[in-house]
Amino acid sequence: MYIYDVQIRTRYNETDKMGIIYHANYISYYEIARAEMLRSTGVYSYSEMETAGIMMPVVEIQSKYLLPAYYDENLTVRVIIKEMPTAKITFFFEVFNEKQELLNTGMTTLAFMNSQTRRPCRPPQKLIDCMKNYF
Amino acid sequence: MYIYDVQIRTRYNETDKMGIIYHANYISYYEIARAEMLRSTGVYSYSEMETAGIMMPVVEIQSKYLLPAYYDENLTVRVIIKEMPTAKITFFFEVFNEKQELLNTGMTTLAFMNSQTRRPCRPPQKLIDCMKNYF
Amino acid sequence: MYIYDVQIRTRYNETDKMGIIYHANYISYYEIARAEMLRSTGVYSYSEMETAGIMMPVVEIQSKYLLPAYYDENLTVRVIIKEMPTAKITFFFEVFNEKQELLNTGMTTLAFMNSQTRRPCRPPQKLIDCMKNYF
Amino acid sequence: MYIYDVQIRTRYNETDKMGIIYHANYISYYEIARAEMLRSTGVYSYSEMETAGIMMPVVEIQSKYLLPAYYDENLTVRVIIKEMPTAKITFFFEVFNEKQELLNTGMTTLAFMNSQTRRPCRPPQKLIDCMKNYF
Repeated sequence: MYIYDVQIRTRYNETDKMGIIYHANYISYYEIARAEMLRSTGVYSYSEMETAGIMMPVVEIQSKYLLPAYYDENLTVRVIIKEMPTAKITFFFEVFNEKQELLNTGMTTLAFMNSQTRRPCRPPQKLIDCMKNYF
Repeated sequence: MYIYDVQIRTRYNETDKMGIIYHANYISYYEIARAEMLRSTGVYSYSEMETAGIMMPVVEIQSKYLLPAYYDENLTVRVIIKEMPTAKITFFFEVFNEKQELLNTGMTTLAFMNSQTRRPCRPPQKLIDCMKNYF
Repeated sequence: MYIYDVQIRTRYNETDKMGIIYHANYISYYEIARAEMLRSTGVYSYSEMETAGIMMPVVEIQSKYLLPAYYDENLTVRVIIKEMPTAKITFFFEVFNEKQELLNTGMTTLAFMNSQTRRPCRPPQKLIDCMKNYF
Repeated sequence: MYIYDVQIRTRYNETDKMGIIYHANYISYYEIARAEMLRSTGVYSYSEMETAGIMMPVVEIQSKYLLPAYYDENLTVRVIIKEMPTAKITFFFEVFNEKQELLNTGMTTLAFMNSQTRRPCRPPQKLIDCMKNYF
């Protein structure tokens, strides 16, 4: 299991007229969090992965909303990888506010895709080697 | 069953560096589509519902990505309600491009909430009366 | 002078916690409006222009906010071109609500850029020929 | 003069199909930067200002785009206040990438508004007292 916590401060343009963070923004928070998690491996940032010719299109997302987040909160987004990636990789997410209340849970599945051929591919060997240590 | 089709043209700011529509935007498309569907009932627009003191926070979303959408495509978002709303209402979605290819499927569950008390409530009677005809 | 009006309905995710349309969204409205204006010429959609190898990066924007817009309003964005495009093109904008109140004025200047070389270039001849009729 | 630097990492959903950061996002960066600057005064965060009954709607924005920003860059947004705020406050901005290249300059003018009456008002005395030290 690989677990990584990322801090994200909510932005004014992410609020809506209910006075809370608009729900679709969590999907972007997930993406920011997994990019930071990937960077933390020291192997690849997501940006370097794209430069190396691998894109990771999103295949599926799920999100459950338990409590609202508000403007200017410093959220913790916990990213969890439970299984070794294959041609796909699934990230689970838990979002907490500063009071440690669980606001949201979710998951995202991405595919590894060769950016030339736009066909599915295996994850880069360096990433597999790194991940092996956690499973 | 209540089915309603809404046209949404993709916007430049919704694209990402992969050259496709960024995945979180479908969650906003869902919301635009169910707002238009609600308007089509002639009973309430979502805006009028809020004025009447009812908010509809999102409880859960799911989305599956089958094929990408591109800039300036005229998408059809099909909204489907399969069951009479209770304290919650679930919308299902199918997104098609102009070639009638199915790009994405999804669902959103929302709660009815009294905007004063911020507590769950029943849907407005007028909406129930209208929906009855379809189930 | 070339004047063209585009209807844009405000979206829930464009509101903020003040209950109004977040100011940066007008910049996207401008872009949607000039894309529709370009399509209306019958010469090029912005999408076809990109396919033809011309990108139009934004060089400058200005925007003045007179009155707020709210959720679910059907705005009219008036696009005005006052001068023949050279290596740059400047669009002026006026945004009205349904009561014909002027909410916002603005302008955007874009450059024509060869998407291969990423160097400035002239606008496509077909667009020049079309625009000549209005100046 | 009050000068404050804020770091903002560009996000994937902020890119567009040109492969660069979509221009309207700088307007949000400005807002994030001035919120952090306000927090740095130790007097008020923007959030506390709203709680204290003062909103700050945007009156005018300007932005010039010199060079593009890309995904996953750690931008520095420099916020500059050149004059004591009156019923309005003007922030100037300079955006740099990690190579210290100047990508963008801009300004935003906001009004102080009583959130009850939605009428213009003076800035809070504590903010004036704090700002006096810099002018």
